[in-house]
Formats: sequence, structure tokens, C-alpha cells
Amino acid sequence: MEIKVLKGILSANDRIAQENRKLLDSKGVLAINVMASPGAGKTSLILQTIAGIEGKTRIGVVEGDVSSSIDAERVGREGVPVLQINTSGECHLDANMVQRALKDLPLDDIDLLFIENVGNLICTAEFSIGAHRNVVIGSVPEGDDKPLKYPLMFTIADALVLNKIDLLPYLRFDIEAYKKSVGGLNDKVEIIGVSCETGEGVDRWLNWIRKQLP
Amino acid sequence: MEIKVLKGILSANDRIAQENRKLLDSKGVLAINVMASPGAGKTSLILQTIAGIEGKTRIGVVEGDVSSSIDAERVGREGVPVLQINTSGECHLDANMVQRALKDLPLDDIDLLFIENVGNLICTAEFSIGAHRNVVIGSVPEGDDKPLKYPLMFTIADALVLNKIDLLPYLRFDIEAYKKSVGGLNDKVEIIGVSCETGEGVDRWLNWIRKQLP
Repeated sequence: MEIKVLKGILSANDRIAQENRKLLDSKGVLAINVMASPGAGKTSLILQTIAGIEGKTRIGVVEGDVSSSIDAERVGREGVPVLQINTSGECHLDANMVQRALKDLPLDDIDLLFIENVGNLICTAEFSIGAHRNVVIGSVPEGDDKPLKYPLMFTIADALVLNKIDLLPYLRFDIEAYKKSVGGLNDKVEIIGVSCETGEGVDRWLNWIRKQLP
Repeated sequence: MEIKVLKGILSANDRIAQENRKLLDSKGVLAINVMASPGAGKTSLILQTIAGIEGKTRIGVVEGDVSSSIDAERVGREGVPVLQINTSGECHLDANMVQRALKDLPLDDIDLLFIENVGNLICTAEFSIGAHRNVVIGSVPEGDDKPLKYPLMFTIADALVLNKIDLLPYLRFDIEAYKKSVGGLNDKVEIIGVSCETGEGVDRWLNWIRKQLP
């Protein structure tokens, strides 16, 4: 008897993520999955990008939260298209939630789409949503041991933004140990130190973003 | 036809959580489930408690992490019994993991058991592990909007420790807004501001702990 072996079958989530990617590509939209712990500065980095990027790059934002629409309201005040996804308790965005959001966004008028994931340093790393790049935000007050404790997130990052560097004088944070830990997990990721509060380092982040745009 | 309705059937996790609770009670151990975002200060608060509590209260610790044994090593240096659970990617401790750990701990020699959960402000709140109290640690740098964004965690807290208050002068954090948000979710929880770095407020935390002990 011959046993039929099905190969390369996608999970439901991965299939829908692939559809999302195709839609984004067909519209010429670069999508960035922004992931971090709660309060590391995901929304603040998006706001800094809206303020700092050249006007010809049109930004759109999807905000993922367990509940509330606080972040979408902050972003909406900047006059860019924004959609809030409330996951009703789910600890991450998945491809289907993002597909639903993409249907309601004016993709023809967007060049750069930030998809701000739920604040979670574990589960969000496990679900493809169809984005082109993964940006992880670390934060100085979280401590320099986070890459060792939450390795998957740092492994899948295309860029690692280390936020709140203005607090370095007030905290013990060994930046060399942090870089070494990250390098052991991911030797391609760029680490970009910023303070979304003072604006320090944001120019380097904007340069990274510009290099990703077509 | 009569339809048989099964009522009050426990999930596998809840059944094992109940077994854990019975075991802890039979040994006279008070168990505390410590939950927070990554880097909020769970291990630091446990270390402060070990240093500050009277010698007659014997402490044990279970450390839950996705990977690494950094926290267990920090705690182990204080000479208390400690066990590391590595969840291999899972974003929370569950009752079965804790049951396994309880088997290896010298429960007859422990009065107060801290179970430090995985750094996660969402999923850890959803799984009973059999502990007697839920202690949630918030952190000033995370921002004052966390209760609104992650409501379940704040709803189930018996005590809310707000750590890193030494950073208040350097950050925008509206303590009144924070208290109001927490109060809207949970009118019984005590909010205890501390700095595990300077030791400020730790006496209030120790008082809370003392009141829980039999």
C-alpha cells in the first residue's frame, strides 16, 4: 500500500499570513510587525517615526491590544490612518485579525504600515501575520538579561530598538553584555539605541526604516 | 429523554491546581503567585523579602522562565531552597508544572513559597496554579496606562506592588490616574509603592506579607 505524504502544507495562520503578504506586496506597502513587552515604547516609536519621516512616505498603523483604544487614539491625533484591533484577551495578533484590519485600511494611500502587536515578549513571536520585517523594542529599565530569558523574540528580530537610553545614568544596565547576548542569538540584527522621550538616536532608527523602503 | 448535565467539572489544570493547594495546606505553606511583565522586578522583590523577613519565616522559591536559570541562581545565592522550571517556550506556568516542582521542594521546611511566574502580563493571569495569593508587580517605567490595557491581571491581584518608584522624578507617571484605573477594576487590592533598588517602601510590602501568614 502506498502511503500518501502531504508536504509543505501550511497551517491556517501561515496560509492567511501569506495572503496578507501578497496583498501588501500588490499595494506596494511595507509592513512592520512591532513587538515588545508592555510599556517598552511601541506606540512612542511609531509616533516618533510619524513625526520624523519625510512627508512622501505615507504611514498607516494597526494597533493591537487586549482591550482599550488608548494607543489608536494617540496615533489618530497625528492624522494618519489607524485601526484598533482588540483581541478580547488573546495575547498576540494573528494573521486573521490582521487580514480583517487590512480590509478596512486605505492601502492605496499607505507606503509604510506599522502593525503594533500586543505587549508580550513571548507569544507574539510565534505567530506570522504577513509583515515584511520584525522590529523588537527593548527597554533599558527591563534589564540587560532579557535576550537570555526570552530568546525567540530576539532571534526573529530584523531590528532591535533599545528604548529609554535616557535612563541609563539611573540604572544598572550592561550594554556590552546585552549586545553579546543578542549577538549570540542573532548575528544579523542591528541594535539601535534610542530615547523616544528626548529624541536621541531616533535619526538612526529613521535611517534604518528608510533603507527598508523600496 | 433525560439529558444528563455534568456540573462543576474541573478542567485538568484546575483539578491539579486544587491538588496543589491541598498539599500546600497540609504542609502549612502559604504560596504566592508572583506575576508581572518582563523586567518589572519579580526576582528583586523576592530577594528583598528574603533579606527583610524575620528568620522564623522560612522561604522557598520556584522560578518560572521560558529558558535560562539566571533567576534561580540569583535566589539560590541567598541560601533558600529554589527550583527552576523552564517552560520550553510556554508563556505561563500551569498547575502541572508547579505540582512537579512541589514534589522536589522540602515543603516541611518552608512557611512561605514564592512562585515566580513567567514574565507576561496576559497569559499568566489565566492559569490557576494552586497558590493562595496573586501578587502583581507593576513598574513605573511601564507607564500608568497598563491597568487599562491589561485589565485581567489587575482584576485578579490580591496585592499590587508598584516597583521602581525611585525613577518617578525622571518619568511622566500619573500615580493618581494609575490608582483610579486599578480601583475601577479591583476595589480590594492594596497598592504598595516600592523601590527594590533603594529599599524604599519595602517595609510596607513586608507588612502585607506578614499579615497573610498564619
